[in-house]
Amino acid sequence: MDQFIVKTHSRFGMIDITGEIRSVLKKSGVENGACYIFVPHTTAAVTINENADPDVPKDILMEMDRMVPLYDDYRHTEGNSAAHIKASLFGPSEVVLVEDGNLVLGTWQSIFFCEFDGPRTRKVMVRFISAG
Amino acid sequence: MDQFIVKTHSRFGMIDITGEIRSVLKKSGVENGACYIFVPHTTAAVTINENADPDVPKDILMEMDRMVPLYDDYRHTEGNSAAHIKASLFGPSEVVLVEDGNLVLGTWQSIFFCEFDGPRTRKVMVRFISAG
Amino acid sequence: MDQFIVKTHSRFGMIDITGEIRSVLKKSGVENGACYIFVPHTTAAVTINENADPDVPKDILMEMDRMVPLYDDYRHTEGNSAAHIKASLFGPSEVVLVEDGNLVLGTWQSIFFCEFDGPRTRKVMVRFISAG
Repeated sequence: MDQFIVKTHSRFGMIDITGEIRSVLKKSGVENGACYIFVPHTTAAVTINENADPDVPKDILMEMDRMVPLYDDYRHTEGNSAAHIKASLFGPSEVVLVEDGNLVLGTWQSIFFCEFDGPRTRKVMVRFISAG
Repeated sequence: MDQFIVKTHSRFGMIDITGEIRSVLKKSGVENGACYIFVPHTTAAVTINENADPDVPKDILMEMDRMVPLYDDYRHTEGNSAAHIKASLFGPSEVVLVEDGNLVLGTWQSIFFCEFDGPRTRKVMVRFISAG
Repeated sequence: MDQFIVKTHSRFGMIDITGEIRSVLKKSGVENGACYIFVPHTTAAVTINENADPDVPKDILMEMDRMVPLYDDYRHTEGNSAAHIKASLFGPSEVVLVEDGNLVLGTWQSIFFCEFDGPRTRKVMVRFISAG
């Protein structure tokens, strides 16, 4: 298992971590199999979406804030219930396939760390499993 | 890794792909392990839900459209931000277990390709990993 | 593959199953790899979130009910369309990494079975795959 740090700089953020995952894959030497990406946090998540137009992650974060408002008569007194709910909606993990030593991603797909309660110093865990 | 094509015929759609996944499993010869289903798109997703009553996928698509409206002051100029957001909510992958050469699915579970920005010609990637 | 039963006692509920998953891991003897948790139901799900403050799961269930109301002109006549939609939003599976015989979970992370249409007797499937 490998891990790396993501520093987030605002309350909400989507940080492209595709390059970091590719570096871990290269080091692992796995040619064919699957890649598990796991975020060990309850107010953050991992997702896959478009990064060609930076307005896409902005729209995602804006709309998630509209769907799950920061203040909505929550009981949890830390003030970050919305972040916990978004974390479960997007989920803490993604699986990406590996073929011929490369991540199998569509043309427009990037892997994003999602910060819903920043700024914080976060961790991402990665493991590759060989299919053979 | 295997892949197959899904042609969608309307803007929103849930297409049952359980049969296609079963065919790939048979070909793979895997008896015990896990199946990864991955959609290489950012305005589509994969989910597991009921197909016995076709009103269930209809209700899912209707309610997702209510939660994430097509027009909501998005910045992304392609007009499909809602589809990107739904893609992250449902996610691009599912993992299904395999036991004695069969997919382990509940009585009411079917695997669906979710189209949020059709009609388009789409791809689904599938890989089986043996549990040893 | 292993499985265990979860009995739910109300319409909505989040039941911490981390202990059950740890017991299955111990029995499996897997030291390094991945754990797949799969719920074979279409009105329930599995998620990972905080259980230190029991108000967090309460807020999650309250807000999910606000986002996906029980009654909203659904076509499905069984009256549980909201549960089907929530099931797809949270998803039927989670992947957790395993390192040195332990689940790799963050300080605040617990694994929850999510009941959206209880009370019922439910099942959880678990499989570990070794990375080596």
